[in-house]
Formats: sequence, structure tokens, C-alpha cells
Amino acid sequence: MTNLTTPRAAFDLSLYLVLDPDMCGGGVADMVRVTEAALNGGVTVVQLRALKWRKRAFWDAACALQPLCRSHRVPLIINDHVDVALAVDADGVHVGQQDLPAKEVRRLLGESKIIGVSVSNAQQWREIETGVVDYIGVGPVQLTATKPEAGPALGVDGLRSLLATMRSPTSTLKTVAIGSVNVNNARAVMETGVDGIAVVSAICASKAPEEAARALCEVIGS
Amino acid sequence: MTNLTTPRAAFDLSLYLVLDPDMCGGGVADMVRVTEAALNGGVTVVQLRALKWRKRAFWDAACALQPLCRSHRVPLIINDHVDVALAVDADGVHVGQQDLPAKEVRRLLGESKIIGVSVSNAQQWREIETGVVDYIGVGPVQLTATKPEAGPALGVDGLRSLLATMRSPTSTLKTVAIGSVNVNNARAVMETGVDGIAVVSAICASKAPEEAARALCEVIGS
Repeated sequence: MTNLTTPRAAFDLSLYLVLDPDMCGGGVADMVRVTEAALNGGVTVVQLRALKWRKRAFWDAACALQPLCRSHRVPLIINDHVDVALAVDADGVHVGQQDLPAKEVRRLLGESKIIGVSVSNAQQWREIETGVVDYIGVGPVQLTATKPEAGPALGVDGLRSLLATMRSPTSTLKTVAIGSVNVNNARAVMETGVDGIAVVSAICASKAPEEAARALCEVIGS
Repeated sequence: MTNLTTPRAAFDLSLYLVLDPDMCGGGVADMVRVTEAALNGGVTVVQLRALKWRKRAFWDAACALQPLCRSHRVPLIINDHVDVALAVDADGVHVGQQDLPAKEVRRLLGESKIIGVSVSNAQQWREIETGVVDYIGVGPVQLTATKPEAGPALGVDGLRSLLATMRSPTSTLKTVAIGSVNVNNARAVMETGVDGIAVVSAICASKAPEEAARALCEVIGS
């Protein structure tokens, strides 16, 4: 896919893994193991998110994940910590509403990196600066324990209706749905029109993350 | 004072204020108020530290403090978050043992900024890379509730003995003592040979932070 409107390389949001260290088993090695399996199973983006971790451990994990993702030609996105993204030359940064503003992130990262922002409602979507932000994580689809600050659940119908209201046919802004998306609701979520699904527990908490990723790929048809 | 050995501008560690948002009153405006008073009272360095804050609030505080510190020609040092330091063009970064390694911080910040590292014992001191790190925060002098991870207290005697063992007469590495330093023990702490004292509650929790800073200046003779 060629993207003519931004200097960023094309990227595929269809199966977006958000790592949760506790669900993976607690340590860096556990996250690496889950990520490697998930990459083999077909995930198209990996985000390192460790809300409770201090930055040394976070950086250790990023250092381990960066060559792994690169060898699979899958973007590594760093949650929140632009400094870590710069330190390991990650492919992008994802920020929530309580993190650095996207405009600051763009200024720090430069034009070649991917920036994503979490969006829970129409108001937050309206505030997204096109040209600065490449994709939005829309959710939570269902209530989730992994990000308690994420706000009330949209539900699949709410997601569809938000997309219908807000998505502009001329915009290059991509969308990925997040929040308790799993193999059971993945098809319905994809049918709302998002560009992909982001999963946490569906892969991180699975005893067979490669198979879990593969099953999700099949359901979403990627 | 001229510093011939590094490209960093000279800085004066003698009265180093570490902000604690809760002790200041909880919000950005409270920290600004305390900082302004402390600057008027004579503090020579201001560090923004807010271990529990998300980065948007932290960045808001840094944006407010940066012009204030600059107008007083006092360096603003950012705890932990190199991205925020870059975003607001702060004068430096302070990292603890659980934050990014100093070498990574130097690479991200460039040669003109100040870098400090927390050190609790001889082993951590030995690991300091001279040329990369400009100063170390040595402590805790006494046990402190503001940084529970800081390790066992050195005591004034332990601080003196650590300095005697570790400090090289040819090194340009500066030292600032931290951990329950206040107007009662400031003189004794300074007499161990440190270049300055870092205080948290002695100013942040004071009802009269300007007077508290001035009293500390008098005791340490700066």
C-alpha cells in the first residue's frame, strides 16, 4: 500500500498486539516469548505498554523487542515514553489522553515515525490533528481491566456509530478498535469498518499465543 | 565559575530544590507558587519530580516552570522523563537507578545539558561514567518518605566516609546530598564536603517557602 500523503512508511493495523507485562508472565523474557510467538502467528503491529513499569525495565524490554519486530518487518510502537522510542529507534509512539500531546510527540519524533492516539468519544476524535496523528485507537469496545482509565465501553454498535459520524472519506487517519476484543467478537468489530483490531489478553494471556494470533488473523480475514 | 572540562554551562548545586507535588499542595499552580517563592529565597537548582504523575500533567508543570526558572537564571532539571526535558528545553535530567541509563540520556539530550544520577553506595558510584554524568545526588542522608526506593540511610557520618572513599580530587563530578536534609542538619551535611544540599519537604512542605529557602542559604553560607 502506498501512502502519498505522509512521509511515514505504510503500516498494517489489522492485528495490533498490545503487550501487557503481567499477562505475559511478568518479565522482559516473557514479553519477548509472547511477542515472538505472536509475530509468527501473524500480528502486524506490536505495542509495548507497561503502565506500572519504571523506565529502566521498560527500556530493557524495548531493547529486546526492537530487533525482534524489525526482523519480522512489523512496527514496534512505544506506549507513552517518547524518550524510550527515541533511544531504541522504535517505529512509533502511542499516546493516551493523559500522555504528552501528539503535537509534542511529532516534534520530538520527526516525520518518519508513526503516532497513534487513544480516542473514546467524538469530542476526543475532533481534537485529533490530522497530519500529526496517523491512527487512532478507538475504544474501549467492551470494558477492560487492562486500562481502567479508558472510559465507558462503546459496545460494537457504539463503535459503528462513532465511526459513521466521525470518519471522513478523505481522511488518511486509520482506526484500530481496542478494549476486550477477542476471537469471539473480532469479526463483528472488524465489520464496523475499522482498519484493525488491537488485542491484549486475547494473545498475552493465551497459553498458545501463536495459535491465538493465527486464529484472530483467520477471523478478521487478514 | 568556569568549567573547562565539559561543554555544559557552569551550575551551582548549593541549594537544590526537588519539587514534590503533594507537599506543594497537589497541583501545577501549587508547584509554581512554591518554586517562585523558593527562587526568591535563593535556591540554585529546581528539579521537577512527580513520581506518580502521568506525563500530560508532568509536561504541563514543566511548561509552567521552565520560563520561571529561566527568568531567575536557575537550571530546571527534569526527573526521569527525557522526553519532557526535550519538549520544554529544560536544562537537564536527573535519573535514578531505575530510570534510563545515563549514557542513553546523554545521547538523547546532547552535550550541552546537565545530567545527574542518584547514588546510594560505593558500588553505584563506581558505575558512574565521568564525562557523561555531571553530578550525583548522594543519599539518603536520613530515611525519607518522599522516595521509599532510595535505600538505607547513610547518616552524616556515612556520607562523609563515602565521599572520602570515592571522591577523586581530579574529578569534575559534583555532589549534592539528599534525603531529609533540613535547616537543622544542613550545616553538618555541608561540612561533609558535598557541593550542595537537595531538599524536598524543607521547602515544599513549608508554609513560608521563601523564608525556608533563605534560612537554608544562611545555614549553608551560600
